[in-house]
Amino acid sequence: MSHTVREKAKLLARVRRMKGQMEAVERALEAEAECGEVMQLLASIRGALAGLTGEVIEGHLHEHIVHAQSETERNQAADELMSVLRTYVR
Amino acid sequence: MSHTVREKAKLLARVRRMKGQMEAVERALEAEAECGEVMQLLASIRGALAGLTGEVIEGHLHEHIVHAQSETERNQAADELMSVLRTYVR
Amino acid sequence: MSHTVREKAKLLARVRRMKGQMEAVERALEAEAECGEVMQLLASIRGALAGLTGEVIEGHLHEHIVHAQSETERNQAADELMSVLRTYVR
Amino acid sequence: MSHTVREKAKLLARVRRMKGQMEAVERALEAEAECGEVMQLLASIRGALAGLTGEVIEGHLHEHIVHAQSETERNQAADELMSVLRTYVR
Repeated sequence: MSHTVREKAKLLARVRRMKGQMEAVERALEAEAECGEVMQLLASIRGALAGLTGEVIEGHLHEHIVHAQSETERNQAADELMSVLRTYVR
Repeated sequence: MSHTVREKAKLLARVRRMKGQMEAVERALEAEAECGEVMQLLASIRGALAGLTGEVIEGHLHEHIVHAQSETERNQAADELMSVLRTYVR
Repeated sequence: MSHTVREKAKLLARVRRMKGQMEAVERALEAEAECGEVMQLLASIRGALAGLTGEVIEGHLHEHIVHAQSETERNQAADELMSVLRTYVR
Repeated sequence: MSHTVREKAKLLARVRRMKGQMEAVERALEAEAECGEVMQLLASIRGALAGLTGEVIEGHLHEHIVHAQSETERNQAADELMSVLRTYVR
């Protein structure tokens, strides 16, 4: 069973919290809040998103690469990982 | 009128699109999709979030700093901007 | 006098330290060190570079934008800042 | 033979180019250049550093994780990788 399945409840809770943070941005814009407040809300989503992504990356690395028995499988999972990492390491 | 008010409709549309992207992550987790797919969805949210943040930052910089007539006002807006930038430039 | 002139000695010391860190990567590669070590050295340069860049950005923002008396001058300095920020906020 | 050994000449050339870029920052500060120029030079170093780091990460991932025969070895190399990635994914 994959880590995103095993950790499903915990990951879903984080995603739903981020959806709530997005709704806070929506309400701030609708209420014509200060743009300093909007920037702060966006920065906090960035932090939450990076935390969640880091966790999924770590699970992927361990489960689909470290623990995979066949090199073919590891190779494919590494390609998937690198395509995500390229958006971070640049 | 502040840029986040003037651009309200456009910014709200982007925030709602990102909420939709978050819901796609939610559905992928619930459907026990491949974690490679989850990582890709998260990476695309990161791109959308950065695009939106960049736009709000640019509006803030021009409106509350460049166009502000008093130095006190510019100073306060610059502090707000730096506190957000510190989460990016590190 | 510009902040990069006023802070010249301090900024130069940081740049030289980073050059030293780059030379440590050079020596590690020449000595055929573990690549884990090379990655760690590169990660520490990234931190130092971000710290220095953040400082130059903050100085630029205060001196050439907040304290500038003419809006034309602030506008030009803001464009310079945005072109650098776009490489960070993405 | 490790990827950082096999690619030694190419990696060293990149590191030396970056050292040259650092020296350009040094000269710009000494010559009391515009701080916009200093920021641009720093942004270009950031790009070069990310490119080099991405290459070392990819080599590490393939050589020490994908191609490693023992799970113990893969596990240790994955920990090294994650400690570097945590500085990027945040």
